[in-house]
Amino acid sequence: MIVAGKHFRTIWMEGSSIFMIDQNALPFEFRIHEARTYLETCTAIKNMTTRGAGAIGAAAGFAMAQAFIESGGNQGFVEIARSETEATRPTARNLFYAVEKVFDAGMFAAENAVIEAQRLADENVNDALRISEFGNTLIKSGSRILTHCNAGWLGFVDWGSALAPIYRAHREGKKVFVYADETRPRSQGARLTAWELSNENIPHVIVPDNAGAYLMSKGMVDVVIVGADRIAANGDTANKIGTFEKAIIAKEFGIPFYVAAPSSTFDFSLSDGGAIPIEERSPDEILYQSGPDESGLNHRIRVANHTSSALNPAFDVTPAEYITAFITEKGITSASGGKFSF
Amino acid sequence: MIVAGKHFRTIWMEGSSIFMIDQNALPFEFRIHEARTYLETCTAIKNMTTRGAGAIGAAAGFAMAQAFIESGGNQGFVEIARSETEATRPTARNLFYAVEKVFDAGMFAAENAVIEAQRLADENVNDALRISEFGNTLIKSGSRILTHCNAGWLGFVDWGSALAPIYRAHREGKKVFVYADETRPRSQGARLTAWELSNENIPHVIVPDNAGAYLMSKGMVDVVIVGADRIAANGDTANKIGTFEKAIIAKEFGIPFYVAAPSSTFDFSLSDGGAIPIEERSPDEILYQSGPDESGLNHRIRVANHTSSALNPAFDVTPAEYITAFITEKGITSASGGKFSF
Repeated sequence: MIVAGKHFRTIWMEGSSIFMIDQNALPFEFRIHEARTYLETCTAIKNMTTRGAGAIGAAAGFAMAQAFIESGGNQGFVEIARSETEATRPTARNLFYAVEKVFDAGMFAAENAVIEAQRLADENVNDALRISEFGNTLIKSGSRILTHCNAGWLGFVDWGSALAPIYRAHREGKKVFVYADETRPRSQGARLTAWELSNENIPHVIVPDNAGAYLMSKGMVDVVIVGADRIAANGDTANKIGTFEKAIIAKEFGIPFYVAAPSSTFDFSLSDGGAIPIEERSPDEILYQSGPDESGLNHRIRVANHTSSALNPAFDVTPAEYITAFITEKGITSASGGKFSF
Repeated sequence: MIVAGKHFRTIWMEGSSIFMIDQNALPFEFRIHEARTYLETCTAIKNMTTRGAGAIGAAAGFAMAQAFIESGGNQGFVEIARSETEATRPTARNLFYAVEKVFDAGMFAAENAVIEAQRLADENVNDALRISEFGNTLIKSGSRILTHCNAGWLGFVDWGSALAPIYRAHREGKKVFVYADETRPRSQGARLTAWELSNENIPHVIVPDNAGAYLMSKGMVDVVIVGADRIAANGDTANKIGTFEKAIIAKEFGIPFYVAAPSSTFDFSLSDGGAIPIEERSPDEILYQSGPDESGLNHRIRVANHTSSALNPAFDVTPAEYITAFITEKGITSASGGKFSF
């Protein structure tokens, strides 16, 4: 997508370095982070310098490619790198998908690892493009769309998943309006989705996560579109904490609830969502907030009682029955009867 | 309740001044704010130096008492003061209840206004005490209770509504555990409820508002108790934004959802919740956060994209059908058939 007139991918490889838009610095500063080793890339995944199902997948593929470069043919080194890369974010399916693909390619011939990681990044872009096209057919002009977290181009290599159909619809001249859930605790909606939508000049407003039922009860939301971190064989979907809550209330109000994700997010080895590992992150993400003051100086402040702690599950699992349909690069499919049509 | 070994009410009158715990300074600083005129008390209600249905009611009653003192018998002055007091927070029923009672008392004899305002504050404490007793019967030892916003002693003159039964259960030796919803955007859960629970040594954890469905789906919540700002004749209940969402998901998981409120919160002039005015507050409450850094220095930081705005409805209305029962000072009642039993 375009930032200040220039096209950027969210993450890319040059030589043996991975370059990525620093998503912890956004929206206040647009800055490119360089990870020179696979370990630096792992750190960037873990501390969410790069984040979002698709971007994590691409980053993990690149990390494996770096590991092969650094290994000097030492297979033990690559195997350790694989474990370390897989341990960065346990929930995202795309991570394991990419690691496996690049690992297999590299075992055949080390230089193929880089080629495969680059191919996966391109595949990610193409999948998102197809999702934008299929998803666009679900959006009428005048649609008011609620989205949760950030499943935009920052969460992918380009275009995004949940936001891709919105970008497509907007570029085709359809009138769209987006409610961006703030998405506590890391506020990816208020920080990243709102920033992306501003860049694309798409009318939108940030809403507290608490406002969902209010907006829907007032008839202010036509459709909900979210992304996914992992989808089990029966359609149960892990996504950012709060997604399940939105799915329940959307169902209550008869509002369609779509999950947009490429097939690399589907994990057919899991029969249902009960087995999806849910990452628990630091309570500090809830207890503290960071951002600039009026003069642009960054501060980390306490936003909760000093003598209390917090519980921070990063994802929840929405059972398939709450999901109207899945928007994938292969088309729109539902999980009715516990099976997908592709 | 007790702060550092000393008993405090949330708000009280001495001479012609109203003293109140500054709830904007909590949990980082415990400070008493003095409002010397009815206008200063109005400002304190508006900017939420004092807040919560019951405390707003007491404050409004005291503001009217101050107005009578300041009026020197000028009825026009008192009438203007009444309008101004009523305009501070449109949703809270207790405010209008108290203003009317003190206005009527003062019209008969100005000195009665102070007596009536003091009586209302005492009534508030006694109602909360009764709510603590009735509500306690609903809490088993071992209960894990989810609450939203702050309906504790800070939201009343003492004891609280939703938290009062929890305090009572805890003092009787029952084992209780509380999930305190952070309650964005003003984070009354993370700041005030967590502070109150810490003072009372009640085991608790702050959770993002997004975690409700996750916690309930994992069987981690036994009961939900919230307060109320206004309850219509059919039981539809206005409370802090996000309450409706919790009520929907509690119903989905078959978890009892209780509303605790004194009868002064009930507005029998409204047949249903559709007519309850919903206050819309400044987008800045969502876009900025304030709090101390590590060295205790306070900062106001931006926590959202600079070029985006936000929508900030302060309350939502939960239809009666989602509410298991109401815990009042007169007993526990349901609104089945659209009517209360008292």
